[in-house]
Amino acid sequence: MNTDLPVITDVRLTPILISDPPLLNLSGVHQPYTPRLIVELITDAGIVGLGETYGDRAYLARASELSRQLVGVPVGAINTILGLGRSASALIDATPAASGLRGALTTDKVRLSVISAFEVAALDALGRHLGVPVHTLLGGKVRDRVEYSAYLFYKWAEHPVDDVPADPWGAALDPDGIVEQARKFLVQGGFRSFKLKGGVFAPQEEIAAINALAGAFPGAPLRLDPNGGWSLKTALRVAEELTGVVEYLEDPTTTVEDMAEVHRHSGIPLATNMIVTSLDEVKPAFDRDAVQIVLSDHHFWGGLHATRDLAAVCRAYGKGLSMHSNTHLGISLAAMTQVAATIPELRYACDTHYPWQSEDVITERLTFTAGAVDVPDTPGLGVELNPDALARLHERWNSMPDMRERDDVAAMRRAHPGQRTATSLEY
Amino acid sequence: MNTDLPVITDVRLTPILISDPPLLNLSGVHQPYTPRLIVELITDAGIVGLGETYGDRAYLARASELSRQLVGVPVGAINTILGLGRSASALIDATPAASGLRGALTTDKVRLSVISAFEVAALDALGRHLGVPVHTLLGGKVRDRVEYSAYLFYKWAEHPVDDVPADPWGAALDPDGIVEQARKFLVQGGFRSFKLKGGVFAPQEEIAAINALAGAFPGAPLRLDPNGGWSLKTALRVAEELTGVVEYLEDPTTTVEDMAEVHRHSGIPLATNMIVTSLDEVKPAFDRDAVQIVLSDHHFWGGLHATRDLAAVCRAYGKGLSMHSNTHLGISLAAMTQVAATIPELRYACDTHYPWQSEDVITERLTFTAGAVDVPDTPGLGVELNPDALARLHERWNSMPDMRERDDVAAMRRAHPGQRTATSLEY
Repeated sequence: MNTDLPVITDVRLTPILISDPPLLNLSGVHQPYTPRLIVELITDAGIVGLGETYGDRAYLARASELSRQLVGVPVGAINTILGLGRSASALIDATPAASGLRGALTTDKVRLSVISAFEVAALDALGRHLGVPVHTLLGGKVRDRVEYSAYLFYKWAEHPVDDVPADPWGAALDPDGIVEQARKFLVQGGFRSFKLKGGVFAPQEEIAAINALAGAFPGAPLRLDPNGGWSLKTALRVAEELTGVVEYLEDPTTTVEDMAEVHRHSGIPLATNMIVTSLDEVKPAFDRDAVQIVLSDHHFWGGLHATRDLAAVCRAYGKGLSMHSNTHLGISLAAMTQVAATIPELRYACDTHYPWQSEDVITERLTFTAGAVDVPDTPGLGVELNPDALARLHERWNSMPDMRERDDVAAMRRAHPGQRTATSLEY
Repeated sequence: MNTDLPVITDVRLTPILISDPPLLNLSGVHQPYTPRLIVELITDAGIVGLGETYGDRAYLARASELSRQLVGVPVGAINTILGLGRSASALIDATPAASGLRGALTTDKVRLSVISAFEVAALDALGRHLGVPVHTLLGGKVRDRVEYSAYLFYKWAEHPVDDVPADPWGAALDPDGIVEQARKFLVQGGFRSFKLKGGVFAPQEEIAAINALAGAFPGAPLRLDPNGGWSLKTALRVAEELTGVVEYLEDPTTTVEDMAEVHRHSGIPLATNMIVTSLDEVKPAFDRDAVQIVLSDHHFWGGLHATRDLAAVCRAYGKGLSMHSNTHLGISLAAMTQVAATIPELRYACDTHYPWQSEDVITERLTFTAGAVDVPDTPGLGVELNPDALARLHERWNSMPDMRERDDVAAMRRAHPGQRTATSLEY
């Protein structure tokens, strides 16, 4: 190893709870607070690198375990960090978790999500040390701005619990509400591409919302994502109705076979962040042509290099690449922007939940103009930690032990005992 | 683009001729001199980055054309450099050229081979500027030494032309000669893995040579590479005889269908640098399981990032990765070593022609100990240009216009008019 580079002397792991609006999805509803983990890699050169990932207990436990192996590693040893804790993958939970909606959760997926935060933090520290942006460490940007889609959600006006901060978005529970929400996105950030999180209402209602968006924003790329909530029969009918209307349909169903059938039958492009979520899931899905666009996510693919690796695989197989998002803060948006800037083939607007988050741990929130984020040329990720904000959100984590696990299903059950499940989503 | 990084102000392209022993292969024999192109990227910070690639006319022409686009580009803009001159690929020559033996030559393959030298030179310059080795710019090394195989060749004692420097290796035209050559490799560099360039004599003779090596070096990984010179029938018979004897068989035949048939029938692992030589050739070959080990080559895959991209594709598809070589000098060996050091899955010893080259353009030749090259931690590639050596070899290029195209076929015809062609290689 190159000992001239800063060496990691300490790893600070800070779990936090961030407020989250009552966004609806297949599983249920976002809790008022969702856990995230902020990683600080501290080096002997006094440089600190920042990373962010999921904050649920399984991730915290693995992060704590793996972080011990980082001490003594130079920040330039990214490939060494990526190899940490590699072991046989064991199933943790076969149910697609709300805190991921990315197929069954395995020990290796948790490991990769933790490693990704370490990798991003190491790249941030390396960039700061060398005085170059992270994108230079990934071969350099090929664009100056990264486009994001407006991520539309069915939502309630407020959380059905007391003492929770309100959000300024209001309710959106029908096509008009969704179009109004989209207009807010347009006004606030100039977004030109719209994705609707579906799997909430009957397919006909969600199709009506997409058609309303198509009428309100002619020519704007549209997407619908029910998180695999439909039966094959329903997915086929929706695909038939939305072919030519949406840019792509995302995870209409949950199996390789059904996805392949939907595409074969309708020709509609299908995107996924559920049936292809790691390298070993690529071949089965590509062999069947079950997916045309893979949604990368540096968190669960294992970092920014892994995202570029996925892009290479897609390039070799003629697959499109876009980017998935889960609730995240500015450190992750900066990381997403840095890597997206380096991938020529990433021509779809990326997903991001960021506009839904009113809190952050960085000093200056990233902004969207014309639906895009500028790619910074400042050293590292280009964001600075706000220690007071971090302490405040960590204090919330300390004081709310029952919010430390994101569970959209439980949140929905608390609000509406006996709430319908996915099986009611038939056409 | 980040304008704080050095910007390319000039590109110096120096074609050279290097002496080459009379090594035999399917096409014929190596000429006494073979063309290479040395690239120097000159920056406004006074830093010079080094690259090396093929030196035949098609490459020189494309290099000259593309180098104009480099002026004004920061050395950190690797991904921008990789995109230069991307255009529809047109066939230049359907015959696998001796200066590549990598399937039909297309404009895009020539472009990529040129771009690779620019990319390596830009990485070298960036590394020198930042004070980090090239491997740090690729995520960092995961090993301190890169293992190479001894590349054994049938050869004549000397070139059949006058006024050509002799080489110290002597003739090797039968099993005993090959074993003796292997012993020299072992003594000089401690090589522990042996590859025989076949396709020269009848398959039985080459099998005998492999068996002689197996007897002389028990347990040493062995490979045989006839450059696709065998018919399917012959390939099947050789595969049957060598299964369990060789680590892998390289390009026994030239088509995806025949390669797939050889593997299906014999189970022998097959490597290739002929049927998978660019990303668009991956899917057809992988779909048929026509290859189990892909031989990367940063020259014709388009650089060090492209080599890592190929590694990612192989990882996703459970394919092995090793490294191909053609006649090259120390700049390329340094580049091969830097990228090989960063790829965890590269567990096979890499190929290199380097021990056959007595000349070089760097100040201090790289050395092999225990069959491996140390991965340098000095800035950039870790090699320095020797301007006098470069000038001398360029002067040779100036004075020998008839050697500027590598043509092993013509060299053989001059030596032995009417020499047998591949069709005589039947079992």
